[in-house]
Amino acid sequence: MSRSTNIVPVDHKVSRADRHATAGHDSGVLWFTGLSASGKTTLALALEQRLFERGYLVYVLDGDNIRTGLNADLGFSPDDRAENIRRIGEVAALFADAGFIVITSFISPYRAERERARLAAGEAFHEIYIAADLGTCERRDPKGLYRKARAGAIADFTGISAPYEPPEAAELILDTAKLSVEACLDRLLEYVESRFARTRRRGDPFLSK
Amino acid sequence: MSRSTNIVPVDHKVSRADRHATAGHDSGVLWFTGLSASGKTTLALALEQRLFERGYLVYVLDGDNIRTGLNADLGFSPDDRAENIRRIGEVAALFADAGFIVITSFISPYRAERERARLAAGEAFHEIYIAADLGTCERRDPKGLYRKARAGAIADFTGISAPYEPPEAAELILDTAKLSVEACLDRLLEYVESRFARTRRRGDPFLSK
Repeated sequence: MSRSTNIVPVDHKVSRADRHATAGHDSGVLWFTGLSASGKTTLALALEQRLFERGYLVYVLDGDNIRTGLNADLGFSPDDRAENIRRIGEVAALFADAGFIVITSFISPYRAERERARLAAGEAFHEIYIAADLGTCERRDPKGLYRKARAGAIADFTGISAPYEPPEAAELILDTAKLSVEACLDRLLEYVESRFARTRRRGDPFLSK
Repeated sequence: MSRSTNIVPVDHKVSRADRHATAGHDSGVLWFTGLSASGKTTLALALEQRLFERGYLVYVLDGDNIRTGLNADLGFSPDDRAENIRRIGEVAALFADAGFIVITSFISPYRAERERARLAAGEAFHEIYIAADLGTCERRDPKGLYRKARAGAIADFTGISAPYEPPEAAELILDTAKLSVEACLDRLLEYVESRFARTRRRGDPFLSK
């Protein structure tokens, strides 16, 4: 700057370590993957609320806030689906860089695409397999999508007319056909508390551990 | 979920108001626009650090973290440039939704594209015009881009061979040809402190206002 003579402006970003120290916890991506109706979004939103109440910086990326905005230009062709997941992986990486625990809730059926998201996020990527069997998901069918897919009204529907490639080494597996929402949340909270090192609680120190 | 009988899972996102209450401040987008070498990124990174030190949730989106990741698939054609800015506007809106003050540092030369970003972010959008005149920017030319553009080695270079449309109603204008970095930062901090209502300071209450 022309007028700044003896002042050297700070020209680097606040470090991730600084962000972790201030937030009181590490950041990263909790990548939920699983069939439609497996419970991804139910668990993601409930986990977000629990973590928020405990003072974590946490945010959910799901169809609601991605498909209507950033990825509104994408349809459901194979290329567009791949680009959908690629962008989500990159945005999740930005949120992790900013100090958040970001939870993504998308079917993301292909291993290669999930691996790409892992590469974008680096070490801070945790693949969480929301593993309900197809029969259970099809019985739930809260949006009637399986019914439509069976009737041929939806093309390339994961589990019916398009493949789902289960994770081969997920960091956490939750079988929602066998576990209640509360039991799943307990495991998720335990996972986060053990993996995202807690240095101090934000807010009122009187209420801290 | 099949096993949850008497538990109604929370199926909505943590509200923006809840996030503001916890962070101690409102969230929104500080959209920096201006010519190459006007000082956008210098000011964005310095402001980020100042705000971070004051306990704000703050994050910078700039070429470094956008062009190498989310928008790595985009070139510099008119369509790609428009898509670049569109995506940045949508990602900024997500960060604002998550409780951040997000600072974007991109030339973003066209009014229509900035208006689109404003629509994505809603009320929480603040256009900050980093307004150095072309002569000043060309004299600075830290990356030698103006020289290359004058030599015809870069096509469609903003200010030389492509237009820059100045904001018509920016929320804040900073003329970096006349103001030092420190003076600009003072104005930016004053702007943020007055517009992003501070309810309480995070961290040690003893240090709070």
